Amino acid sequence: MTRTILESKSQTVTIGFDQPFCVIGERINPTGRKKLAAELEAGDFSTVEKDALEQVACGAMVLDVNAGVVYNSNPNPNETEPPLMRQMIQLVQGLVEVPLVIDSSVPGALEAGLEVAQGRPLVNSVTGEEERLESILPLVKKYNVPVVAISNDDTGISEDPNVRFDVAKKIVERAADHGIPAHDIVVDPLVMPIGAMATAGQQVFALVRRLREELGVNTTCGASNVSFGLPNRHGLGAAFLPMAITAGMTSAIMNPIRPQEMEAIRAANLLMNNDANGSEWIKFARVMDAHKAGTPFAEASQAAAAAGSGGGRSGRRRRRG
Amino acid sequence: MTRTILESKSQTVTIGFDQPFCVIGERINPTGRKKLAAELEAGDFSTVEKDALEQVACGAMVLDVNAGVVYNSNPNPNETEPPLMRQMIQLVQGLVEVPLVIDSSVPGALEAGLEVAQGRPLVNSVTGEEERLESILPLVKKYNVPVVAISNDDTGISEDPNVRFDVAKKIVERAADHGIPAHDIVVDPLVMPIGAMATAGQQVFALVRRLREELGVNTTCGASNVSFGLPNRHGLGAAFLPMAITAGMTSAIMNPIRPQEMEAIRAANLLMNNDANGSEWIKFARVMDAHKAGTPFAEASQAAAAAGSGGGRSGRRRRRG
Repeated sequence: MTRTILESKSQTVTIGFDQPFCVIGERINPTGRKKLAAELEAGDFSTVEKDALEQVACGAMVLDVNAGVVYNSNPNPNETEPPLMRQMIQLVQGLVEVPLVIDSSVPGALEAGLEVAQGRPLVNSVTGEEERLESILPLVKKYNVPVVAISNDDTGISEDPNVRFDVAKKIVERAADHGIPAHDIVVDPLVMPIGAMATAGQQVFALVRRLREELGVNTTCGASNVSFGLPNRHGLGAAFLPMAITAGMTSAIMNPIRPQEMEAIRAANLLMNNDANGSEWIKFARVMDAHKAGTPFAEASQAAAAAGSGGGRSGRRRRRG
Repeated sequence: MTRTILESKSQTVTIGFDQPFCVIGERINPTGRKKLAAELEAGDFSTVEKDALEQVACGAMVLDVNAGVVYNSNPNPNETEPPLMRQMIQLVQGLVEVPLVIDSSVPGALEAGLEVAQGRPLVNSVTGEEERLESILPLVKKYNVPVVAISNDDTGISEDPNVRFDVAKKIVERAADHGIPAHDIVVDPLVMPIGAMATAGQQVFALVRRLREELGVNTTCGASNVSFGLPNRHGLGAAFLPMAITAGMTSAIMNPIRPQEMEAIRAANLLMNNDANGSEWIKFARVMDAHKAGTPFAEASQAAAAAGSGGGRSGRRRRRG
């Protein structure tokens, strides 16, 4: 059974076919968030702190940390990202107990994050591009960590799912050459917007099934991509995630502050027999009751988390001594 | 490709793997609705009328009609159900354009319904019980209609999904002996409550896949069974349905008045490439906008249906001359 082990200083999260779906909070990312980028340039980390605490309270089991800024004062990310990544990783792991994802396209920023991260973070990401394979895989091996593998290569992103499968296979094989086992590769098969490609859903469900059955790897995705450009995006996301889970998807990088998708995932966990006695569902139903009565979801989640004092999550997170 | 054809006087609905999920409205059923049963005994059909119009406005493509009353004045359903079924079928098909399901455990009521139903209704149901097989299948053959086949037999409902598959297979084979093709059998694999059986979800997903791949039949279920006894049932139903659709389920008997499940089904239709250009999703998003702004779902749906004047549903329903 494929198990991808992520660790913080104090917690272990297992990504696997027989595990609750792994929700990776995407919010700590200045890409496309101009206000956050400006705050970071000014040395203000208050939004990062708020995003870290809120996402964990809402049910994120892992937090993605991306330091992808382009400062007005210095437009070179190779210079600005590594120190910022170091600072953000240290800040976030000081605030919350969950394992982290070190997310950057700058190899120096990945290494800076790896140097300071406690436990066993997930590296995001390697692709099938030759240059990326040869710069990232040695880092992954050196730090003995798992890595997200995105199914594009030097020819770009193929619309043909068979090509994307072949790219994933190539990455898994190349990783093996570096001594990295398949269970430490989490493949992102790339979800296309359903508004642009009508077969995008069926394509990804079939691809996830193949990745699971033929390569034995865990999978992830940027869950919001599928609904790009369409109205009522959360309604679409809330159906997409249970469908992807049925096909074998084991994690997603997503916004856990939205109740509709989180409700769908918790329901899917129960329906996949990954919520013993429905205890997580029953607890979550109380949060949804409070939310429906008018309390914002994040606030209702934080109140429930505080009341449960962390012990309530033990079904999902084993503490290490 | 398996296609189960249902017809009213004016509309055709096709149940199939490449079709939008077939929502069968369950509301017209006095079982467990004491107030409705009392109304029917008093000859008051106003609730039936309201339920028919509301369900169709909310997106039911087919309506189930069940006349399962136990009158205070006459406790024998063999005497009371047939005339009531006749009356209800005539009333409902006079009010709405959608095909109907004739739903009864009393063979005389099924035949009474078949005598007056226009087009090609669905008979609900036959089981694997010998007596049912030999009383219902000749009726189904005589009227050349499709039938729901429930996977229980003289030994009851098995908790073993392989046994339930075998019962379905036996019904399909026996139907063939009567000259009824597999595409006219819609199997209900029986969904167990997930609160009572933790494997109920996985079981039904695997079973639906087998029924589709090995027997080539369409499937249905009582969608609300899965959440029996648990809190936040609609949240669970809204994840269950897209998951079942991913596994190959093609219809459900359910309450279409609930926005959460209907939103999930419409999203799943789009994600399965059964909503050309997302046009149904985009129309539905406007209904959800109105609903979120405070309009009751049924009312918002009725307003949208009136504005679209029926033509908007042509993607799903072909009119016959």
